[in-house]
Amino acid sequence: MKSLIHVIILMAMAAGSAWAGDEAPTALSNKEAIGLVQDHANYLWTLIAAALVFFMQAGFAMVEAGFTRAKNAVNILMKNLMDFSMGSIVYWAIGFGLMFGASGTGWFGTSGFFLSDFTPDGDPWVLAFWMFQVVFAATAATIVSGAMAERTKFTGYLLYSICVCGLIYPIFGSWAWGSLFNGSGWLEGLGFIDFAGSTVVHSVGGWAALAGAIVLGPRMGKYQADGSVRPIPGHNMPLGALGVFILWLGWFGFNPGSTTTADKSIAMIFVNTNLAAATGAILAMITSWVKFGKPEVSMSLNGALAGLVAITAGCANVSPAGSVAIGAVAGILVVLSVMFFDKIKVDDPVGAVSVHGVCGAWGTLAAGIFNIGGTTAAIIGVQLIGIAACFLWTFPAAFIMFKLIDKTIGLRVSPEEEAEGLDFTEHGGNAYPDFEVSSYAQS
Amino acid sequence: MKSLIHVIILMAMAAGSAWAGDEAPTALSNKEAIGLVQDHANYLWTLIAAALVFFMQAGFAMVEAGFTRAKNAVNILMKNLMDFSMGSIVYWAIGFGLMFGASGTGWFGTSGFFLSDFTPDGDPWVLAFWMFQVVFAATAATIVSGAMAERTKFTGYLLYSICVCGLIYPIFGSWAWGSLFNGSGWLEGLGFIDFAGSTVVHSVGGWAALAGAIVLGPRMGKYQADGSVRPIPGHNMPLGALGVFILWLGWFGFNPGSTTTADKSIAMIFVNTNLAAATGAILAMITSWVKFGKPEVSMSLNGALAGLVAITAGCANVSPAGSVAIGAVAGILVVLSVMFFDKIKVDDPVGAVSVHGVCGAWGTLAAGIFNIGGTTAAIIGVQLIGIAACFLWTFPAAFIMFKLIDKTIGLRVSPEEEAEGLDFTEHGGNAYPDFEVSSYAQS
Amino acid sequence: MKSLIHVIILMAMAAGSAWAGDEAPTALSNKEAIGLVQDHANYLWTLIAAALVFFMQAGFAMVEAGFTRAKNAVNILMKNLMDFSMGSIVYWAIGFGLMFGASGTGWFGTSGFFLSDFTPDGDPWVLAFWMFQVVFAATAATIVSGAMAERTKFTGYLLYSICVCGLIYPIFGSWAWGSLFNGSGWLEGLGFIDFAGSTVVHSVGGWAALAGAIVLGPRMGKYQADGSVRPIPGHNMPLGALGVFILWLGWFGFNPGSTTTADKSIAMIFVNTNLAAATGAILAMITSWVKFGKPEVSMSLNGALAGLVAITAGCANVSPAGSVAIGAVAGILVVLSVMFFDKIKVDDPVGAVSVHGVCGAWGTLAAGIFNIGGTTAAIIGVQLIGIAACFLWTFPAAFIMFKLIDKTIGLRVSPEEEAEGLDFTEHGGNAYPDFEVSSYAQS
Repeated sequence: MKSLIHVIILMAMAAGSAWAGDEAPTALSNKEAIGLVQDHANYLWTLIAAALVFFMQAGFAMVEAGFTRAKNAVNILMKNLMDFSMGSIVYWAIGFGLMFGASGTGWFGTSGFFLSDFTPDGDPWVLAFWMFQVVFAATAATIVSGAMAERTKFTGYLLYSICVCGLIYPIFGSWAWGSLFNGSGWLEGLGFIDFAGSTVVHSVGGWAALAGAIVLGPRMGKYQADGSVRPIPGHNMPLGALGVFILWLGWFGFNPGSTTTADKSIAMIFVNTNLAAATGAILAMITSWVKFGKPEVSMSLNGALAGLVAITAGCANVSPAGSVAIGAVAGILVVLSVMFFDKIKVDDPVGAVSVHGVCGAWGTLAAGIFNIGGTTAAIIGVQLIGIAACFLWTFPAAFIMFKLIDKTIGLRVSPEEEAEGLDFTEHGGNAYPDFEVSSYAQS
Repeated sequence: MKSLIHVIILMAMAAGSAWAGDEAPTALSNKEAIGLVQDHANYLWTLIAAALVFFMQAGFAMVEAGFTRAKNAVNILMKNLMDFSMGSIVYWAIGFGLMFGASGTGWFGTSGFFLSDFTPDGDPWVLAFWMFQVVFAATAATIVSGAMAERTKFTGYLLYSICVCGLIYPIFGSWAWGSLFNGSGWLEGLGFIDFAGSTVVHSVGGWAALAGAIVLGPRMGKYQADGSVRPIPGHNMPLGALGVFILWLGWFGFNPGSTTTADKSIAMIFVNTNLAAATGAILAMITSWVKFGKPEVSMSLNGALAGLVAITAGCANVSPAGSVAIGAVAGILVVLSVMFFDKIKVDDPVGAVSVHGVCGAWGTLAAGIFNIGGTTAAIIGVQLIGIAACFLWTFPAAFIMFKLIDKTIGLRVSPEEEAEGLDFTEHGGNAYPDFEVSSYAQS
Repeated sequence: MKSLIHVIILMAMAAGSAWAGDEAPTALSNKEAIGLVQDHANYLWTLIAAALVFFMQAGFAMVEAGFTRAKNAVNILMKNLMDFSMGSIVYWAIGFGLMFGASGTGWFGTSGFFLSDFTPDGDPWVLAFWMFQVVFAATAATIVSGAMAERTKFTGYLLYSICVCGLIYPIFGSWAWGSLFNGSGWLEGLGFIDFAGSTVVHSVGGWAALAGAIVLGPRMGKYQADGSVRPIPGHNMPLGALGVFILWLGWFGFNPGSTTTADKSIAMIFVNTNLAAATGAILAMITSWVKFGKPEVSMSLNGALAGLVAITAGCANVSPAGSVAIGAVAGILVVLSVMFFDKIKVDDPVGAVSVHGVCGAWGTLAAGIFNIGGTTAAIIGVQLIGIAACFLWTFPAAFIMFKLIDKTIGLRVSPEEEAEGLDFTEHGGNAYPDFEVSSYAQS
């Protein structure tokens, strides 16, 4: 199983050891060999980080399934499986080229579709980089599914999932991150700071989720005729909590992995990521305690995610103390935001718009405010431009997309199907056939 | 906690920095030091990959528990815990020596039992390699438990688990992979391509599972007297889906970790692994939609696994586009295969034979067909020999083993025990004592 | 996203390649560059290991939730989320400085609070090291929550969690491990062997758990007036088993990561960790079979954890065969210990005292007995001193702390709250609102 390349390298390296000095006639100079070993570490880190970010798909699946009703669990799981699967194929075919392909415009790329940049005897870095990017693209798509849970047609879901991974996400991505293989995206050209994607990934997901929740309308029974809001509790809190722990773990790939380099800078990113998540959870717990009289589990869990989303932009350029502040604000903000969207009757079953959209925007602003090298009005201005650009691109594009789907193949299931649960009507399945469903859940 | 070795290395490396050139009198030459750092990266990768593959045990446990009935969940969990635990000890004592020990025959090894190759002051590579191999051996054993779920005696299970990890798997493994520490296994001597074990691990597990399912016979009530097939749905789809996500994650250790080297080649293996899983899931979903009228969750999840199993042989020698094709065929094949085995009344509760046996064979053939450097009749011929050799060794050996167990300590529980559930009768336990069991599940 | 540092390094490395020899005028000498790449590997390993250990929080949450009743699941999840979140902040503010800060006394440190040792342009190693240590500190705290489950007030929990992470754990830690950044802790000065914390982490957690369980008293109904013990089975065995698999995975960071160095020594630590876990599970299963007539799942799962706890001290200085012996004894010991604590009416719902306290002590002793270089009465003596010091510090300190909490804000919920379940009374929630609770669970 030892690869041939490895053997060649080791032979090259070992060859010199029989000589007294470094003048041995080996294939690689010492400098080249050192650079190669560092390259190997970079591949290792980028791909291990990609694996951790991939695992966030399991985290989203568990959070979304756990925070919604048992009768829709199969549907949620199918959506999460399929947005990553379809997303992988679409991002391979189209998205990656749009985001990172060669471009003179700074608005989108036009090469590298189907990984055509890669040749078997060429440098495989593009493959490692694609692997890291595809798990990001799928994250953006999966965020949307939470806000649209329990009432979206499966075919409509598949279609919008393709559009998010193939068009909406990569186009915005090319503005902020596209410079890697071509010229500069227009937004990064301004100096926009979004190291790992508070805006690029999370706000794109969050604002698309907002558009989807608005076009769909609320779940039946959520907002009563008398103006009251009926809570619809999630059916499986251990799954939800497991999902948050998995996401927290995955973020240790998401943020420090965005270096795509194995160097010392990842240490501060790890610490910042962890501290912001911790303060997010604590402050959301306290806020829920103050607002509702009890320390609520779903708010506390969302607080951890809010802190993670918020530190994503600035994780490499704020201090640990700054991260504590960023996470704390996010923890408060997410609770207030969830209450706000309920007030304006936007039904977001898992709080995805608040966690990813609102806290993504906050984190992007905070990356400017808490910049370790000091901040200026110019820095803040550029951050605000980036935040605005994201909303102004994503929300209208997603809104139009959802409207088009709604008018053609249909976006929402029928009231009968919604009442019965999507598991049975859409998938002919039942997530828990061996358990008795409570009278509450049947209502 | 800093190890002494590390301090010595860093001292050796740092020592030179005070001199202008490289002629400093240090313990290691530059070439040796570079080789050592690369070695460290190889250890790191091999062991992190082993940890990921270990985690597949959790994935199998969740898939198998989720896809079967609540009354047998404790039993499934015990089996998964024990096949890895017993497997670790048996593979340490016997299996590893049979598979990789010194041998002139090419049919099995005869040294290295109890890790006797390792001495405390010797090279610990054999330990890193053992760690990677033991998680593979346990994977082969664990596959079997899915096909034999809900009706196998626990003592019979323990015994066959020992035989698979200690004999059946390592002997076939020595034919295909045994050359690492000795001469060449006869199969690899022919040029057989099975990079990470579509045949060596998955088909071995799958064909042993087939033998077990046949010897056991179907679960009570599965195949009705009137010829109809009664579906017995799994009791916990979120666990099943979580299991598949964990397995997908683990495969990022399974396939690229099989380099046992930290080099650039792992990038393509990651990408291929991911693309095949994605297309497997999509095509299985579509196939189930066409065949059954709905996009089924268990078929779609098995489709992802089918794609992963199929790309395992060729992940290092096919292109990303080839991987898309391999996964797509596997996704279709797994659904048809599940239907086929139900038709011939082989009751495989989780579809293990189809996923691992059939798609393992497909993937091994495909590794020849889609070979990035082109294919020939000779390549295809060798792949077919390997596929046939695997079946002709594993199926009869496992069949005889199961028959022997059946005739001695017994392989199947009594009808009363099966009806009541193995959790209570075999383990005195109940997986979910706080929940009301539905009338359906009690039947 | 490529960091600037990376670019500079690669430029420095690449610069030389245009010259024939190694005399090129680059920024770094070859020796410095080699040392830097090794440093990068050390950062990578330490931080990936930290991520794995972080994930153990999910494992503890699933084990503790799965092994207790459904009506307290939300409470358990909140506790696990909060001990890591509060623990992260407290360990950042206070604990890390107490444990590793500069000190001449050998009893506790007095610098480095709020990570003040770190400056943005300084060496970030302290951040990587903090990240690895904070997940250890949180592990100690989380162990306690299992033994005190189903009856502890949430506010009391938050307070003791802060004290364990901020005071009790780091002070003992400074005795055994504090030398890294200052002089020697008094215990390590004697030669105490506890490589990854059988005593420092697990026994500290276990003895604090014992104090807590005693101060709290048993759950209502556990010990009947007639002297019989009422079993209170856990409500979700698949979650419990998943938790154990996650913990086993996390231990591949916990033990080998304690090198904080990417070198060859991690291979033996991986192998030892795995073998001890495997034998722990097997022997606990056999012991439960002998004692109770059936192979019990919760005992077998705890056996794996017992083996892991026991090998933690000696994982780097015992042989694989020694690890098999250490795990085997732990597997037997944990079952007997659980029976013993039930006999003396100390109610520990998940067996935390037995797994972490008792098997931690055994493992620490065993690290002396099975020392690969041979053992002496002096080695054993020092191990016993360390074991005793841990108990004599932790148990009284925790006992006083719990008594103080009990007398002030209160440690235990009211009997009505306990009967109703903490989820509703403490958090206004319900872990599983869609499922019908069985009559057994309601009692």
